[in-house]
Amino acid sequence: MTTQSWWQAAAADIDETSLAQAWEHQNQLTKPPGALGQLEQLATRMAAYQRQLNPEIRNPHCVVFAADHGVVAQGVSAFPQAVTVEMLKNFVAGGAAISVLSRVNQFELSVVNCGTATPCDQLEGVIHSPVAAGTADFSQQPAMSQQQAEQALAIGSDQVDRLKQSGCDLFIAGEMGIGNTSAASCVSALLLSQNVAELVGPGTGVQGQALDHKSEVLVASVARAQQQYAEPLDALVQLGGFEIGAIAGAYIRAAQCGIPVLVDGFIASSAALLAVKLNPSVREWMLFSHGSAEPGHKSLLAGLGATPLLDLGMRLGEGSGAGVAISLIRQALALHNQMATFAQANVSGADN
Amino acid sequence: MTTQSWWQAAAADIDETSLAQAWEHQNQLTKPPGALGQLEQLATRMAAYQRQLNPEIRNPHCVVFAADHGVVAQGVSAFPQAVTVEMLKNFVAGGAAISVLSRVNQFELSVVNCGTATPCDQLEGVIHSPVAAGTADFSQQPAMSQQQAEQALAIGSDQVDRLKQSGCDLFIAGEMGIGNTSAASCVSALLLSQNVAELVGPGTGVQGQALDHKSEVLVASVARAQQQYAEPLDALVQLGGFEIGAIAGAYIRAAQCGIPVLVDGFIASSAALLAVKLNPSVREWMLFSHGSAEPGHKSLLAGLGATPLLDLGMRLGEGSGAGVAISLIRQALALHNQMATFAQANVSGADN
Repeated sequence: MTTQSWWQAAAADIDETSLAQAWEHQNQLTKPPGALGQLEQLATRMAAYQRQLNPEIRNPHCVVFAADHGVVAQGVSAFPQAVTVEMLKNFVAGGAAISVLSRVNQFELSVVNCGTATPCDQLEGVIHSPVAAGTADFSQQPAMSQQQAEQALAIGSDQVDRLKQSGCDLFIAGEMGIGNTSAASCVSALLLSQNVAELVGPGTGVQGQALDHKSEVLVASVARAQQQYAEPLDALVQLGGFEIGAIAGAYIRAAQCGIPVLVDGFIASSAALLAVKLNPSVREWMLFSHGSAEPGHKSLLAGLGATPLLDLGMRLGEGSGAGVAISLIRQALALHNQMATFAQANVSGADN
Repeated sequence: MTTQSWWQAAAADIDETSLAQAWEHQNQLTKPPGALGQLEQLATRMAAYQRQLNPEIRNPHCVVFAADHGVVAQGVSAFPQAVTVEMLKNFVAGGAAISVLSRVNQFELSVVNCGTATPCDQLEGVIHSPVAAGTADFSQQPAMSQQQAEQALAIGSDQVDRLKQSGCDLFIAGEMGIGNTSAASCVSALLLSQNVAELVGPGTGVQGQALDHKSEVLVASVARAQQQYAEPLDALVQLGGFEIGAIAGAYIRAAQCGIPVLVDGFIASSAALLAVKLNPSVREWMLFSHGSAEPGHKSLLAGLGATPLLDLGMRLGEGSGAGVAISLIRQALALHNQMATFAQANVSGADN
């Protein structure tokens, strides 16, 4: 007899009655049916999540999870590892892209240290929950232990429990970690049973020979990890980052709590795939914000059966694509809640 | 010796110096160069328009131009012609999609009657500049006279002159007119030298046999018009709507005044194409908001060399796609103006 882990517990149900009522309402608004495209799907889905005809977003929250990756020793990133902590400072000082977006689009921003290589325990404004000083170099050995992987999942879960108490009604996960496109590519390759050479991309700007080298390192790393792979959590143990595990744990817990998540780009989508492989019921609570310029994102989105809202060629991470897309959700809800119906406005319907 | 018409006068120059400085600034912000994708292109282009390093949008304005189309006598629309004026009432009462978006995204909204079939001169809150009570049925005869076409262009130009006085710094044109996907498809086919059967689509919801009928009517109409076609303005005379002419005139005048325009969907893009054919220098001042679900829009965007910001499957008109996309411009500018540079935030740059 096996004991169920917390991350295997079912997600909350969505409300099919509110979903149907919201579609009926959409079809009475003064527009041809379907003319608002994905904005209609967004609004009706939010109705299903919130179990009400007129959903609203009042307390969106973005948590940026940061960690370092031992594989950078192999020369797979364009930026030095010190940037992870330097950017943590930038997040809390308000100068990063996600900081600007949190002000412009009025969502809360938290930053969690899941394990940076450079010590930063004294950095104020950051929640410190480090698993270790970065992962081990996964080209040589497992990135982390089973216990560390479970600890990473729990970091995300704990954050969602904290946010739930303050009434969070839309969850965004961001990430920061030099080297994490490498980890995300490898985790995704293992979970999708796809050649990692098809998923690898420039990340922060690796090009030419350096990109070929990155690809070779990752192909060898996935080959090593495959020998140890038995179940989805092994992808995290072998290749993952602490931040990727934390995001997967956060997504799972959010779905269990009935909080919809707005998935960001490539790294966040690899965590979304891990979450769905660990617990397929979680998928229902995911909205997808944007298609990243990182070439592997297409395969990830296909694997998740996801159509993102935006396709702006962004590839920054931090939660920035979701931070932009939240404006579309707000607009979708305003249209849904504020447009007049044909009857209210005395507008004629379609000819028979 | 020919006299130049007002719409042939050159557009204002954009400021290449501000453009170059804005790109230099973008490349110093705390992100990998290019990582904000189209948002970087938006911000730098706005810098070129506004001739300053830190552009802002303070007075965006949407003008909805409405008119009727005689070709609806051929049964080419899913909705009755009365809807044009019914929707005018909805615009000014605040219940239409564009009305909601103007509140949510804080832009001014004006509504101009360019010539409706149902009399509405007493409708308050609407600017009345009717050319005639709708166009003639273009399947049988020219939609309007040369003098009416020039009058339609002037309606748009007059509106931009009015907006310029109040400091408008971003212009959106919306449209309303039962039957105007038919007019837009035909005008575009003539200007692109493309078979109109490839450009025709469901509009407000024409399907099956009715769509085949619409296509047959439009193919015959373009064949008739081609016999009379000598120069771009003839496309408006033969097939256009008064609102399409007004929008083209508005785009041209805005470019001459140095006011950037955010082009909406299918109908607005047909007017954009007409404007560019009348005066190629106007193209520089156009931003494209979204790809419409109307199938002919792809050809129109290709003909204009345009990559839109959004692709949400919208097909409502009214300026609604641009009304949504304005939120992306504001976010692009906030990121451009508020993000810290690498030097300000003490963040390391890329490895050499």
